[in-house]
Amino acid sequence: MPAIDIVLVSPLYEGNVGSAARVMKNFGFFRLVLTDSCPIGDEAFMRAAHARDVLEQAEHLTLDEVFSRSSIVIATTGEVSKSVCNPMRMPYFQPSEIRDLITDIEGRISILFGRENWGLNNDEIRKSDVICTIPAAKEYPILNLSHAVGIICYELARIPRGEYLLATREEMEHLYRHIDAYLTLIEHPDFKREPTMLLIRRVLGRAMLTAREASTLHGLMRRSEWHIDP
Amino acid sequence: MPAIDIVLVSPLYEGNVGSAARVMKNFGFFRLVLTDSCPIGDEAFMRAAHARDVLEQAEHLTLDEVFSRSSIVIATTGEVSKSVCNPMRMPYFQPSEIRDLITDIEGRISILFGRENWGLNNDEIRKSDVICTIPAAKEYPILNLSHAVGIICYELARIPRGEYLLATREEMEHLYRHIDAYLTLIEHPDFKREPTMLLIRRVLGRAMLTAREASTLHGLMRRSEWHIDP
Repeated sequence: MPAIDIVLVSPLYEGNVGSAARVMKNFGFFRLVLTDSCPIGDEAFMRAAHARDVLEQAEHLTLDEVFSRSSIVIATTGEVSKSVCNPMRMPYFQPSEIRDLITDIEGRISILFGRENWGLNNDEIRKSDVICTIPAAKEYPILNLSHAVGIICYELARIPRGEYLLATREEMEHLYRHIDAYLTLIEHPDFKREPTMLLIRRVLGRAMLTAREASTLHGLMRRSEWHIDP
Repeated sequence: MPAIDIVLVSPLYEGNVGSAARVMKNFGFFRLVLTDSCPIGDEAFMRAAHARDVLEQAEHLTLDEVFSRSSIVIATTGEVSKSVCNPMRMPYFQPSEIRDLITDIEGRISILFGRENWGLNNDEIRKSDVICTIPAAKEYPILNLSHAVGIICYELARIPRGEYLLATREEMEHLYRHIDAYLTLIEHPDFKREPTMLLIRRVLGRAMLTAREASTLHGLMRRSEWHIDP
């Protein structure tokens, strides 16, 4: 996995810098770079909350320094070029595609986020290797700076989900057999049998039962069986 | 396409409400609901920027009203329960999975976001149909409220149109009452009653029953009841 630097280019509002630091840390990114930044003060630290460390360790560099030390520079932009033929801003990648793009890279990747008021300028975009556009509603595509950082970090984080124990296929089939037998016990009409089992499979399939939940359903059927005189 | 309401539960800081409104509009969502909200003033409108309309049209409701008018309520949580056996908060879905889950639904879906300081409480989570957890770094998993809203809206933004009729909240509550009565009939132990009902709500909530499926479950219980001598 490459080293990823989040580079805020000439940010204007320290609150946004603080929020960006926080959401970076939320998704496991720690390397914040500021070029030509507004002063960083109390408001930034307040918004960074428990990501104070990210803010404190932020590097202050020139944009030239960023370019010269990076293997790949990715420019983020909210604007979609009006002309498909504009080679400078096209083609672009979506955040989810960036992840695949950089997975195998060894080296430093810098992701640039532009100024709050007018983004990255043409020169900055021209020098970048890859353009990444966050897909957004045409009516109002301009994201707040820290939200743009958040979406990109979220996509790149690929944080695996926590583990819980889903019922295995075998356990589910065992459950379906029990249900089928139960339908016989309660004299469910034969002609309804197949559609009912199908319906139950769909419902429980969608629910994605844990092993424990499957076992509780067995228990409820067993308890019913005790009350039913065959 | 389901109607999706973004519900902020007792938000404390108007700035976050404004930022949430903005990022909603960025991804094409307009229906903001506030329950027990802090006052909404200049700071909120400043942060909303060009999403002033979303903020102005925000509905102020009680949480009970939100639940009673929604087909599906999705609770977002940053915490991952430590115990696999805790049925209330497990299993959970990731934002990208929620999109698949609700694609085909017609009806109102309410997505709850908790207070900035301590999220949603257990009662609010218990009553919800689906739990959605934004995967985040263990070191600092607590996202700013508007960033959580942003991630969810980003993920849900490309939802294709759906088709079939989901059971209403009322129909689901009717089903749960029937199940509860059925547990009494089969002498389900009192001490297990609450966790079992909770587990059933979780399972059927995740499965997102159609009206027809709910009615089939009623039918199966009725048929069991005929076979049980009280």
